[in-house]
Amino acid sequence: MLGSTHGTLTTHSRPARVVACGEHPPHTVHGIADPDGADGPRPAGAATGPAGTDRDVSGRPLYAPVPDLDRFFRPESVAVIGASDREGRPNTGITRQLIAWAERVGARLHPVNPGRERVFGLPCHAGIGALPEPVDLAVLLVGDPLPLIGQLADAKVKFAVAFASGFAETGADGAAAQARLADAVARSGLRLLGPNTNLNAFEAFRDDLDGPAIALITQSGHQGRPVFTLQELGVRLSHWAPTGNEADLETADFLSYFATRPEVGAIAAYVEGLKDGRSFLLAADRAARNKVPVVVVKVGRTEAGARTAASHTGKLTGADEVVDAALRQFGVIRVDGLDELQDTAALLARAKKPTAEGVAVYSISGGTGAHFADLATAAGLTLPALSDAKQSELHQWIPDYLNVANPIDNGGHPVGDWRGRKIIDAILADPSVGVLICPITGPFPPMSDKLAQDLVDAAEQTDKLVCVVWGSPVGTEDAYRRTLLGSSRVATFRTFANCITAVRAHLDHHRFSAGYRSPFDDAPRTPSPSARKAQALLRPGQQLSEHAAKQLLRAYGIRVPREQLVTSAAAAVRAASQVGYPVVLKGSGPELAHKTELGLVKVALTSASQVRDAYRELTDIARYEDLPLDGVLVCQMIERGVEMVVGVTPDPLFGPTVSVGLGGVLVEVLKDIAVGVPPFGEEHARTMLRRLRGHALLEGVRGMPPADIDALVETVLRVQRMALELDGELAELDINPLVVLPRGQGAVALDALAVCH
Amino acid sequence: MLGSTHGTLTTHSRPARVVACGEHPPHTVHGIADPDGADGPRPAGAATGPAGTDRDVSGRPLYAPVPDLDRFFRPESVAVIGASDREGRPNTGITRQLIAWAERVGARLHPVNPGRERVFGLPCHAGIGALPEPVDLAVLLVGDPLPLIGQLADAKVKFAVAFASGFAETGADGAAAQARLADAVARSGLRLLGPNTNLNAFEAFRDDLDGPAIALITQSGHQGRPVFTLQELGVRLSHWAPTGNEADLETADFLSYFATRPEVGAIAAYVEGLKDGRSFLLAADRAARNKVPVVVVKVGRTEAGARTAASHTGKLTGADEVVDAALRQFGVIRVDGLDELQDTAALLARAKKPTAEGVAVYSISGGTGAHFADLATAAGLTLPALSDAKQSELHQWIPDYLNVANPIDNGGHPVGDWRGRKIIDAILADPSVGVLICPITGPFPPMSDKLAQDLVDAAEQTDKLVCVVWGSPVGTEDAYRRTLLGSSRVATFRTFANCITAVRAHLDHHRFSAGYRSPFDDAPRTPSPSARKAQALLRPGQQLSEHAAKQLLRAYGIRVPREQLVTSAAAAVRAASQVGYPVVLKGSGPELAHKTELGLVKVALTSASQVRDAYRELTDIARYEDLPLDGVLVCQMIERGVEMVVGVTPDPLFGPTVSVGLGGVLVEVLKDIAVGVPPFGEEHARTMLRRLRGHALLEGVRGMPPADIDALVETVLRVQRMALELDGELAELDINPLVVLPRGQGAVALDALAVCH
Repeated sequence: MLGSTHGTLTTHSRPARVVACGEHPPHTVHGIADPDGADGPRPAGAATGPAGTDRDVSGRPLYAPVPDLDRFFRPESVAVIGASDREGRPNTGITRQLIAWAERVGARLHPVNPGRERVFGLPCHAGIGALPEPVDLAVLLVGDPLPLIGQLADAKVKFAVAFASGFAETGADGAAAQARLADAVARSGLRLLGPNTNLNAFEAFRDDLDGPAIALITQSGHQGRPVFTLQELGVRLSHWAPTGNEADLETADFLSYFATRPEVGAIAAYVEGLKDGRSFLLAADRAARNKVPVVVVKVGRTEAGARTAASHTGKLTGADEVVDAALRQFGVIRVDGLDELQDTAALLARAKKPTAEGVAVYSISGGTGAHFADLATAAGLTLPALSDAKQSELHQWIPDYLNVANPIDNGGHPVGDWRGRKIIDAILADPSVGVLICPITGPFPPMSDKLAQDLVDAAEQTDKLVCVVWGSPVGTEDAYRRTLLGSSRVATFRTFANCITAVRAHLDHHRFSAGYRSPFDDAPRTPSPSARKAQALLRPGQQLSEHAAKQLLRAYGIRVPREQLVTSAAAAVRAASQVGYPVVLKGSGPELAHKTELGLVKVALTSASQVRDAYRELTDIARYEDLPLDGVLVCQMIERGVEMVVGVTPDPLFGPTVSVGLGGVLVEVLKDIAVGVPPFGEEHARTMLRRLRGHALLEGVRGMPPADIDALVETVLRVQRMALELDGELAELDINPLVVLPRGQGAVALDALAVCH
Repeated sequence: MLGSTHGTLTTHSRPARVVACGEHPPHTVHGIADPDGADGPRPAGAATGPAGTDRDVSGRPLYAPVPDLDRFFRPESVAVIGASDREGRPNTGITRQLIAWAERVGARLHPVNPGRERVFGLPCHAGIGALPEPVDLAVLLVGDPLPLIGQLADAKVKFAVAFASGFAETGADGAAAQARLADAVARSGLRLLGPNTNLNAFEAFRDDLDGPAIALITQSGHQGRPVFTLQELGVRLSHWAPTGNEADLETADFLSYFATRPEVGAIAAYVEGLKDGRSFLLAADRAARNKVPVVVVKVGRTEAGARTAASHTGKLTGADEVVDAALRQFGVIRVDGLDELQDTAALLARAKKPTAEGVAVYSISGGTGAHFADLATAAGLTLPALSDAKQSELHQWIPDYLNVANPIDNGGHPVGDWRGRKIIDAILADPSVGVLICPITGPFPPMSDKLAQDLVDAAEQTDKLVCVVWGSPVGTEDAYRRTLLGSSRVATFRTFANCITAVRAHLDHHRFSAGYRSPFDDAPRTPSPSARKAQALLRPGQQLSEHAAKQLLRAYGIRVPREQLVTSAAAAVRAASQVGYPVVLKGSGPELAHKTELGLVKVALTSASQVRDAYRELTDIARYEDLPLDGVLVCQMIERGVEMVVGVTPDPLFGPTVSVGLGGVLVEVLKDIAVGVPPFGEEHARTMLRRLRGHALLEGVRGMPPADIDALVETVLRVQRMALELDGELAELDINPLVVLPRGQGAVALDALAVCH
């Protein structure tokens, strides 16, 4: 091992560039299995235009081509620069492993080392210029790969892998060295994996396993080992991309490439940070269009964890709730444990499209069934009650006093004879059942061995998903090792929790895929007429006054109260009668926040004298507290609505993000906020609202009428438009509160704060 | 198997009764290891009085003796009623297993069967009366055990086990049969396990394992099998109590017995329902006093799950949030999966008392360390940053560019030689570190084998906790099977999540134990003077008017607004001037709820004319809506406080429970409520408040002053007192809102609803 696989400082994506790519390059569109296992073409991914020319109104790309990595993973010829067979040198072990791998995959291998005539019996070449053919892949076993990049390009080498460490993962000097390397690569026409990566891509993959495979991407070699080891349990692995410091090729490149490969049933990834947010989203979009499930462990649940990972990789880690939201928007399944990554990816790679979402829980113990059903229901799975007819059918073989409504308790005995298989087939034949789960908590060979065999046999003859939980902590039992793991048709788990997580992900994935519509297709490309109006209101480097911020909202068609900015008590009284009583008076100034706490808001003023008094009080406070006012706002008073907040926050990975939450106490104390990463459409805005814990407030509680959710959704979308069109000019926006009136009456921004770049 | 192990309809505890028990019965107080592994006496549990005489003011027991089950688990003589050796009979297999077990444990076994002379070569007796000695234990292999109970008692048999099924688990007839059986047992002096139980208590336990053991209680035999199987991985199991239908002996009996056994390091339980709430709490209290950790899977996270479990067991399942609260109050650790039950119980049984709460994460991969640290921190574990001196020490052996602050990344190479052990010892020597966790995600023998051995060796020489996560999905590797599982000093896990759950439970348990004070010691025994005043206000079967409910509160010293009940507009005006403006008017009547929605509340009235108008409007609405009023309340208006709810709700398992939550939207939409199960003290009331998601509101947010938390706690405790003293008379109480004023100013119940039994 030359070191672990981290570190980059190149945090923003360079212009899209590939070795060879077109809209639908023929070499990436084979006769391909669809994600449900049926054969059929898998497109490279719908595209909205040729590489690099299609951008949204904020300038971010709406399209990224699929890099052609066929010759990286299956090269016909390989050069090993720095090859050695001298005992005790680290390069010797690596050379030996590469020779074995090249023999296995049928690649021609050319050692390069000026000091040797032969290496492990192979003719050795003095330099890159002396290679006998233009090789597909050069493995660079040298301390500093930078001087080689030009030679590799001259020799028409397609891909290189740099193992050397000492780059961005070691600090500022290393980061600078990495930047120089990245620049050289970008100018060369070569594509580079690394630096600071390892041999994982060239391990001994099992080639005796059938069916859809997992393709693996890791930002730490050690962290990918358990998924690789799954092959010993019969799960096929097609690729492993250890992305290292990502000076050039990055996680997104492998994600989009794998999403077009026919043999890939699911993509599993261990991610510490991303090089660029948009390129990741475009790759995830391609996987979503192609219905290829992506399961990810993303470090950064805590700020401390994010910091550790960032310092360790040099990559960017945005706010976790933003990453989480982005993953969810594109159907990427996030799990926390490597064990969940294995179990979920293995299931998603191999399971066919479900015929129904109903889960049947079948057990030889009423206790086990009740326990599993409890946890499954709590996790959101649906256990349909079986029909009376189906229950009667099952009671032919199961004693009458046992519950077979679902969970189905057979009491134990029927599994020991011919009835066992009958029961399983009868459950699988039920149209409400798409998934059969049989938790076997204890190894009890007289029952569990026969049960395992029946489940395997039944699974061979159905398209429905059959899952088993083998709960023994030992795991060396024959029924587990041979019978269950020996079948690729039964999904076998070790814990209830992982089974439930994986089955839920499977059902979620297919539901998501069926309804997926790429947000990039509908993203705004040109500025709306609002943009010019809005830009005139911006003041670079400043926080706008409430009045100006509201004009900004008005420019985007977001409703604000009738209001006037006045500078005398008499004008305030005149304004109040025009605005209409009752009114609210607020101090207005460019840098004011927390006006309520400062005493600069007076509500429910119902008469001229109250307005006059309030005006004097506000201006007195401002003078006393030395708060510069540009005037006093006389505003229409809005009542009886649900208070929300809607805002724009910049994210280092994804650019401007749009958040919406329930206002007041809920946002202050509970941070009940949903984040959307642009671009997203109306349906997603509605999904964001449903994710709020306090969502029921919008539907009306305690005699309150339902709120105008359509108007709220429209506001969120207008704010998104504003965020994209004014990206680079508007740094932050906070509408707090946005009062959502009863259905049909709209939503009004009562206060707003805007900060310019 | 005679069936699974469920069902009882006897849902309320019978009077405490034991075969032989005293305050500190000598046969249950041996020279005993304390839970930290040091030798020392383990008391039977502090007791507040002799059995059955000590009750709280609600009549519930404050003391339960420990049943002496020594002769049940280790009988000197056993009778098998219905013994058989005829081929093909179910009793034959059971008889064979019991004979083998009796030989192993050195018990004399007497077959009883009127139709046989000898069974498996042993002399067989014609009936219970013909037994050659008064046996400790009779195993009843008969379809109906009821007729035998009297004979067993006459023969001075101490314990019986009834395997027969067909009782409460089968429906109403079975439940009635079980009730008859329970009655007969209660009169007999015998103690019975079952019916509907199995052989689990008499399995072949491994006797070659050392150290503190797990004692297991299950309400479903199959569900206990994985914990039993842990013995194959080297974890000692001392007892298994399959409680069956619990016609007599129940989960609580075994819990309190195991809590006094010297060999028991932790108690693991699988629970579907409880026979009686108070007896369970008293048993949990005994375990808490004795510092014996209890880990429980309790089915019933969902209502559906609770229903399934209840129908399946015939036991009671209270509201899950109440069960959850009760478990937490007594330090019982609740987990959801059987795998978590195994891993957590095994760790708690064997780990010594932590010297510090700090966790050090040590790994051969920066990625693994960052990932584990992220999840551990998110779960509430503390990873202290190592001192500069310690980091310098570690950098003697670990390259400078690697992060060793914690998590500690050694980069891989140092584990291969003498440095590996040095690093581990140096980390363990740090006083801030109580727990060392080494996650090894991939089996990579050149590194992981040596690392595993170093960890095992280091663990032998420290009192600190050493944990390893062996992340390979295969689990047949030598480093795992032999090295790690071969050591009882290293706690080995298969997943990050289970390791984190168990370590957190371990630290929580010791923190809880150190601060535990039994609430039964301080529970009220006699009614307060408030009780008589309050009782005069109750109206059997009725909901009290708001005014009467507030008088009830006043009787318990809970502050209510100044208010008067009036029946004319003129009286309302007079009352307003006495109460003091501004005032609130509310319609008052015995069956009124949701007054605000009905329009029966008028707030912020500042003048006599407003009061007069409001009075008329209220009475008009009441007349129009046909709502009988007993008058109109003129109340002092209270402003600027945090709105809470405090209430009393009856629970089928535990009797009256006290809940407290944040009012308004938080309680309506988010159900942000903490439940306390009496008896509890002031500290626990404060803990309940800290558990509220909106807790920060009480501490003051957005310029609000901190609330009078002391007054809120005092109110919760007074409500608890009321709930206990009026148990059986007061069915429900709901103070909503209780306005908690700024610190030092108290709390005021603005509205209250009380329902009488």
